[in-house]
Amino acid sequence: MNMSRTRRERLVVIGGDAAGMSAASQARRLKGRDELEIVAFERGHFTSYSACGIPYWVGGDVTDRDRLIARTPEEHRARDIDLRLRTEVTDIDLDGQRVRARDVDSGAESWTSYDKLVIATGARPIRPDMPGMDAPGVHGVQTLDDGQALLDTLARTRGRRAVVVGAGYIGVEMAEALINRGYEVTVVNRGSEPMSTLDPDMGRLVHKAMEGLGITMVNDAEVTGILTGDDDRVRAVATPDRDFPADVVVLGIGVRPETTLAKAAGLPLGIHGGLLTDRSMRVRGHENIWAGGDCVEVLDLVSGQERHIALGTHANKHGQVIGTNAGGGYATFPGVVGTAVSKVCDLEIARTGLREKDAHRVGLRFEAVTIESTSRAGYYPDASPMTVKMLAELRTGRLLGVQIVGREGAGKRVDIAAVALTAGMTVEQMTTLDLGYAPPFSPVWDPVLVAARKAAAKVRGSL
Amino acid sequence: MNMSRTRRERLVVIGGDAAGMSAASQARRLKGRDELEIVAFERGHFTSYSACGIPYWVGGDVTDRDRLIARTPEEHRARDIDLRLRTEVTDIDLDGQRVRARDVDSGAESWTSYDKLVIATGARPIRPDMPGMDAPGVHGVQTLDDGQALLDTLARTRGRRAVVVGAGYIGVEMAEALINRGYEVTVVNRGSEPMSTLDPDMGRLVHKAMEGLGITMVNDAEVTGILTGDDDRVRAVATPDRDFPADVVVLGIGVRPETTLAKAAGLPLGIHGGLLTDRSMRVRGHENIWAGGDCVEVLDLVSGQERHIALGTHANKHGQVIGTNAGGGYATFPGVVGTAVSKVCDLEIARTGLREKDAHRVGLRFEAVTIESTSRAGYYPDASPMTVKMLAELRTGRLLGVQIVGREGAGKRVDIAAVALTAGMTVEQMTTLDLGYAPPFSPVWDPVLVAARKAAAKVRGSL
Repeated sequence: MNMSRTRRERLVVIGGDAAGMSAASQARRLKGRDELEIVAFERGHFTSYSACGIPYWVGGDVTDRDRLIARTPEEHRARDIDLRLRTEVTDIDLDGQRVRARDVDSGAESWTSYDKLVIATGARPIRPDMPGMDAPGVHGVQTLDDGQALLDTLARTRGRRAVVVGAGYIGVEMAEALINRGYEVTVVNRGSEPMSTLDPDMGRLVHKAMEGLGITMVNDAEVTGILTGDDDRVRAVATPDRDFPADVVVLGIGVRPETTLAKAAGLPLGIHGGLLTDRSMRVRGHENIWAGGDCVEVLDLVSGQERHIALGTHANKHGQVIGTNAGGGYATFPGVVGTAVSKVCDLEIARTGLREKDAHRVGLRFEAVTIESTSRAGYYPDASPMTVKMLAELRTGRLLGVQIVGREGAGKRVDIAAVALTAGMTVEQMTTLDLGYAPPFSPVWDPVLVAARKAAAKVRGSL
Repeated sequence: MNMSRTRRERLVVIGGDAAGMSAASQARRLKGRDELEIVAFERGHFTSYSACGIPYWVGGDVTDRDRLIARTPEEHRARDIDLRLRTEVTDIDLDGQRVRARDVDSGAESWTSYDKLVIATGARPIRPDMPGMDAPGVHGVQTLDDGQALLDTLARTRGRRAVVVGAGYIGVEMAEALINRGYEVTVVNRGSEPMSTLDPDMGRLVHKAMEGLGITMVNDAEVTGILTGDDDRVRAVATPDRDFPADVVVLGIGVRPETTLAKAAGLPLGIHGGLLTDRSMRVRGHENIWAGGDCVEVLDLVSGQERHIALGTHANKHGQVIGTNAGGGYATFPGVVGTAVSKVCDLEIARTGLREKDAHRVGLRFEAVTIESTSRAGYYPDASPMTVKMLAELRTGRLLGVQIVGREGAGKRVDIAAVALTAGMTVEQMTTLDLGYAPPFSPVWDPVLVAARKAAAKVRGSL
């Protein structure tokens, strides 16, 4: 008899949000407590929460913070997961198969050995190294603690001038949140247009819509520092051209993979600083270590190269795959096509696949078309305009990317293109897709079909 | 020199709605008047109108009939299309390459020869052969003339009791239209649940929602006749069990391909009575005759068999393909996957692919799963429940069909499945689709992904 078959294995999880706790939960579903011990370390106060929901909590659409928490520490513990909150892992000892953890409050440290390890350390917000970034009134919105701190500041602050630094997803969502709270909002953006995940011609539509909402949009502006007053609180955001008075500043500059621990342990990182995994989400070259969520790079199925995308839906999928594999099953995460949706008030913004500059960068030549259509049949009430941009590879006509800006019904239409990208469809094939049609839902030619027809004609050279 | 190259060809089009006039317009785009003469016959008063929009015109959402007309006769004529309204084609002479047409008003007949022929004769509503079907107050809603006649009746009729016969798309849409106009609406349905394009378990959700809207839904009821009063007007709809008092009756029983002419000419018809075409929409075995729209059968890509589907979006695609080919270009229509969306007030109903009984009929064995999810993140305002049913083939796990019933955001989600069906994806592959996620648009696991996960687990035998 092989005694090791009866030994209880230990799975250690670093990070208690989406990827880590999905992995832990799924592993537990597959293996009971008699077979597998699960220890999870989380340095914060919360587990399994929706960071993506923070702007809507700050904006008042979600009134109760706890509704953002999908599963509490108590619920995890009830499932026989040994969850250690406020405990930060400070070291991974690969040779010894153990991690060192420190109690954040007491400072006490101890080692925990593992048979299997999951790294789900997430991402950290980019905070440029410039004067005043730590001044009171300057806030990130990465964690629930961040969100609470921002709400506390808003409750205390009399002035109504808010400056959002950065005009990506977080930036525009926070602009909406602050407008909804009655602030005068200025968004200071380094790029030429907001939403640099879109091509600038599509970003321009977002720009105009934001101005229509009363948001002041400042492009091509590099923030050089935060100016503070006599009370050391934030007073303004400085750029080379001018200063923007601010009673509160929200940083939405983006995030980087949090891989300090992994790097120190010598685990493989990609050019974006994220952990590199294989299709089973195993860290490359390491049989018993998995990584997922915002700390990894993912394969972009369209470009064939790795990207870093911090998004809850990927983190949950990674966790599911990792937990299945760590629990003795089999699952893979093939990669992403780069789908994202967002909104600013009633403007919906969506993208999937490659932008023009992505295609250039990876050596793909393309045709790009942009069309105007409507969300419903033109004669149906509340039909709203929608702009669809589509990129198709030269010669092959393979779909490369889609960007959509419009009102109700625009955002999730990008899913059509996300599936078509996954399937490697050509724009010619897309022209005959059997999409849902009825006057309240779509014109007789869905906007995505209109774009596909134009793109196909351009690829054929008949446009 | 080949003189025939300079001879002007004549394209004759029978039918002036979506398929016929799309074909004529597209052919004209490719070939100018010096190369191609185009003659189009339409027996009614209108061209290129949206029959799908009629329920919304009757219901008052669309106030102007002319908004349902995409292109008027004058606009077609301005594009050098010789359009002959109120002119019915009564004969196709294949050997002579000519058609006989009759002026509906004068009765005058004449022959017109063709080099190329397009048959787009549409569908005719099913009107059961039973007493009273032609009584005043009994209306179909197939054409703009039908819609106007119904509106005239509604304006004249004092009583507020409306009975809709049939509970398919037209039936439920007309029920909504009449509820919106303040009628007491009873829907009399032969099937066990409304929306027989869904499985009965999903139709049951529609049934409940209709009752919630104040519509009286009567299932398993076969209409045996229309009862009339002393004034010969409709008085009630009779079934074996009871009579349903009615001041107005709307027939929404469905349609059949209108292929009387084609049949008389000996053109090939399928088992559903529609013309059979090849991928280029050419009538099988006939080099210079094309057919499209509601009068043809289409290949169902999931079952591999022909179906009859009367839907404007297909008719427009057929017309585009026919016009391209008749104009000397190249285009194909590969088939359909059977996507349809509809709504009753704020209830959205969608389906694509095969129902359980379709799968049984074509010899496919499957697993079926049903899940409940929400349209947005659960914590986001106005997140509404959504039910998704998914069928996957046994062993292969290939997606076979999806049905969705819910509120805002439910209907067009079916497009995800429509593209996946077209691509031949398995439900396992669908579990990692990169669909758009943000809290206002979707839970972190989109409802379609939740269904795919459950279906994949069931196919694997791990559910």
